[in-house]
Amino acid sequence: MTQTTDKTLALDVHGGDHGPSVLVPAALDALKADPALNVILVGRPDEIAPFFDEADALFGQRVRIEEATEVIASDARPRAILRAGPDTSLFRALQLVKEGKAAACVSAGNTVALMTLGVKLLGVLPGVRRPALMSQFPTSGGTIGMLDLGANLNVDAQQLAQFALMGAEVLRAAHPDRPASVGLLNVGHEDGKGHSVVREAHELLKTSDLDYRGFIEGHDIFEGKVDLAVCDGFAGNLVLKSSEGLAAMLFNEFRSTLMSSWRSRLGAWLAKPALKAMVERLDPAKHNGAPLVGLNGVVVKSHGRSGRLASTQAILEAGQEARHHVPERIEAVIEKHERETAA
Amino acid sequence: MTQTTDKTLALDVHGGDHGPSVLVPAALDALKADPALNVILVGRPDEIAPFFDEADALFGQRVRIEEATEVIASDARPRAILRAGPDTSLFRALQLVKEGKAAACVSAGNTVALMTLGVKLLGVLPGVRRPALMSQFPTSGGTIGMLDLGANLNVDAQQLAQFALMGAEVLRAAHPDRPASVGLLNVGHEDGKGHSVVREAHELLKTSDLDYRGFIEGHDIFEGKVDLAVCDGFAGNLVLKSSEGLAAMLFNEFRSTLMSSWRSRLGAWLAKPALKAMVERLDPAKHNGAPLVGLNGVVVKSHGRSGRLASTQAILEAGQEARHHVPERIEAVIEKHERETAA
Repeated sequence: MTQTTDKTLALDVHGGDHGPSVLVPAALDALKADPALNVILVGRPDEIAPFFDEADALFGQRVRIEEATEVIASDARPRAILRAGPDTSLFRALQLVKEGKAAACVSAGNTVALMTLGVKLLGVLPGVRRPALMSQFPTSGGTIGMLDLGANLNVDAQQLAQFALMGAEVLRAAHPDRPASVGLLNVGHEDGKGHSVVREAHELLKTSDLDYRGFIEGHDIFEGKVDLAVCDGFAGNLVLKSSEGLAAMLFNEFRSTLMSSWRSRLGAWLAKPALKAMVERLDPAKHNGAPLVGLNGVVVKSHGRSGRLASTQAILEAGQEARHHVPERIEAVIEKHERETAA
Repeated sequence: MTQTTDKTLALDVHGGDHGPSVLVPAALDALKADPALNVILVGRPDEIAPFFDEADALFGQRVRIEEATEVIASDARPRAILRAGPDTSLFRALQLVKEGKAAACVSAGNTVALMTLGVKLLGVLPGVRRPALMSQFPTSGGTIGMLDLGANLNVDAQQLAQFALMGAEVLRAAHPDRPASVGLLNVGHEDGKGHSVVREAHELLKTSDLDYRGFIEGHDIFEGKVDLAVCDGFAGNLVLKSSEGLAAMLFNEFRSTLMSSWRSRLGAWLAKPALKAMVERLDPAKHNGAPLVGLNGVVVKSHGRSGRLASTQAILEAGQEARHHVPERIEAVIEKHERETAA
């Protein structure tokens, strides 16, 4: 089987908390789940090898190792990140995309490093002011996309409007039949609410081609009021992480409550099949894989703590985005928007 | 029984979604729960009367009506708010505090109106740059205070540092034996993370008298890592409302899951006593009552949708703050900090 570029991903096996012991098996799961996918495992061959022998036999040329002996630390400072070279697994994985040997890069490592080196090696799409980090969350009715989640702490109105255009295109690429409705996060629904940046972005979005529904508030996110929620990276990061923390707390409270007495333990046993289905539907692992939108290439951030299931999900997400040519689609949307607003 | 000022609250009975039918019974519950409290019900006598006859007999002079025939709409624009006069229930309730006839004002109405008229009528404490909206959330181990939750959308470092000082003093007033640990919300824990405003506030807080624990991230809020989380009002408002929305979604999913089959319904019945205790502990109603800290007077915002239990909680919270002379304590803390930093 010949590897064609738009089916091949470069996986940084040293990013995140778990490394090759989790990421190599996750890659093999992804190869099983998506027969059109190929994976290049980028990292230290001796650390990959223990998990790779079996893969070699099962998947033939669909998986191979690319040597990179160094690792960018999860707490690396910007200066250290900029000094990183092709001997680091993340740099090499991105370089494979740049060289056209892979169509996407996946890493669970340092987000700042992924963004910094992504910009440095792949560059930003024409017309895009700043790339943004996007993710999806489960809602009461389905899922919602949200960006930016931390790549841009200070934004202007033009950037927020671009985040909306780019995020909506990511959703449309995955669901071409469904127009993506967009909301701009604010402290109130009414025109005139919020600071000048969101108010100005609101006016820009009103005149865009998007299915723009106006301002939304925090509680609208999980009510599934729109398909895409847009905000600056500072607020978005706090919402993302506080939501993860709250969900973890509630599930823990719930678990320990059910284990607190003989009677409730029996109740839990009876309710288990139903509860398991619920937990699976809401499992954040199912929604892992946050694209850095606006880069000239598919780059997907996996959660640092991701286990095997979540890592597989991020790899499959990257595979989908590469196949849907998301960067090319974003480039076209931004170019069209720039042309229309200039006219 | 003579009313003494620091025991008397002015309650805007027309604020919020429910009005006198919920707020008058809630006030009576508060009078029962706190025998040292007096309440002035501010609003339309004919709408209060149906819920007041009984109160009159039971509580004698501890409760009385102050007539105000107009109501500030929940969606009132700033200009309309500034035009409001003493014939509106909120204005009159705040005026009673200004006149020294009440020690605190409670309203479930328009937050912007509460802040705008609070500043206009009561003024801001000496040295305080801007008042902030504070609230408490349940965490895995107890509760956490957080501010600002929406009063200040653009802040500078000095303001964030003041929010920390004021919020910590609110907690200390309620728990004099427990020093309040403080964290500054940011997108990472390390020095150098975040935008310039949080980095500068971080340096200011390091040199303060507070038990300052440095930057915290969104997930630290519900893990109860600190007693007080500080951030700007834009991000804080999104965190507050997204958390409310997520908790509501998870409880709904959970409820419908448990009702989904005969087997899980039986399990739910068995686990009910344990689950009820958990839900009660985490019930947002138990934590209702958000003080506007920094005003020259106790002003407490109750959630617009508050039912009877939550409304009672907000009234009791205001009573506690008045009794603990929270504004005077904040004034002293700010004055001390200004003196020390000027030296």
